[in-house]
Amino acid sequence: MSKLVEKKISSQTVYKGNFLDVKKDNVVLPNGENSTREWINHPGAVVIVPILPSGKIALIRQFRYAMGSEFIELPAGKIDKGETPDECAIRELEEEIGFKTKNLNFISMIHPAIGFANENMSLYLATDLVQTNINRDSDEFLELMPTSLEHALNLVWSNKITDVKTIIGILWYQKIYQESK
Amino acid sequence: MSKLVEKKISSQTVYKGNFLDVKKDNVVLPNGENSTREWINHPGAVVIVPILPSGKIALIRQFRYAMGSEFIELPAGKIDKGETPDECAIRELEEEIGFKTKNLNFISMIHPAIGFANENMSLYLATDLVQTNINRDSDEFLELMPTSLEHALNLVWSNKITDVKTIIGILWYQKIYQESK
Repeated sequence: MSKLVEKKISSQTVYKGNFLDVKKDNVVLPNGENSTREWINHPGAVVIVPILPSGKIALIRQFRYAMGSEFIELPAGKIDKGETPDECAIRELEEEIGFKTKNLNFISMIHPAIGFANENMSLYLATDLVQTNINRDSDEFLELMPTSLEHALNLVWSNKITDVKTIIGILWYQKIYQESK
Repeated sequence: MSKLVEKKISSQTVYKGNFLDVKKDNVVLPNGENSTREWINHPGAVVIVPILPSGKIALIRQFRYAMGSEFIELPAGKIDKGETPDECAIRELEEEIGFKTKNLNFISMIHPAIGFANENMSLYLATDLVQTNINRDSDEFLELMPTSLEHALNLVWSNKITDVKTIIGILWYQKIYQESK
């Protein structure tokens, strides 16, 4: 076993919310001492780089309550109970931008908040999109923002896109796009 | 006012932890209906791309309790009360890898968890490092992993580095490095 491992002695749910739980665990540190770790139990999420029939990326603009402002983002969402990440990606695409995909490709698993949450986020590329009906969650409001790869890269490097999953999704798509030429 | 804004009616701290609080707010949605938003109040953080005298990036390997495994990361940490992000970056560099910097440059502000936390993370480049003493938090264990930019990029694109702040820091450094040639 690695000398960096922290071993769980006990775990307690100190807050149970609608979609996230806070856990507080007693642990043994690598030096044998005891400590506590507080962490968020997260159901996991997906983020999708959807390529519209025009070749543009389907970015969205959304108000993020925790941050108190609007963000430019890729479509994304939390995994529902019993859902696979693939199923979640297909559902979120239809809910958020109103497209079905015939070609969903897993790119990578990324980890947004390893300091305090166990969130796994699966990143996908979705091509061959076919328009359908938008069927959003009743508390979800957003605007579609079709954006060329070139402009999306400008938004990243000029700090206009600051959401980490969106930065990484765009830079992965740039790499895949360049390698496909 | 944008038509996407969600307006706070009231806010309640539903859990108060050692370093994070959970808030539950009543809000008015853009369509006029009421809803609740649960979110994490986070003190903010920094992440640093430290360039060692050898030219290598000072990556670290660290066990992340919430994830239950080790991660390859850039040095990073939460902002202490009363601290500026710059002061935090200088402190974390010394604590985690044992170097002082004579040249700390702010690169960008990124947002790791906009779906459920208000965390602002300042990304820095640190050059002209001078070795000092490592003075870690008593519950912090990590290994220094000096890594060339080329190898760090391989680790990103082969999904061996999956921590979002580290992916973005390495890709920013690649861009800065290329443009300085």
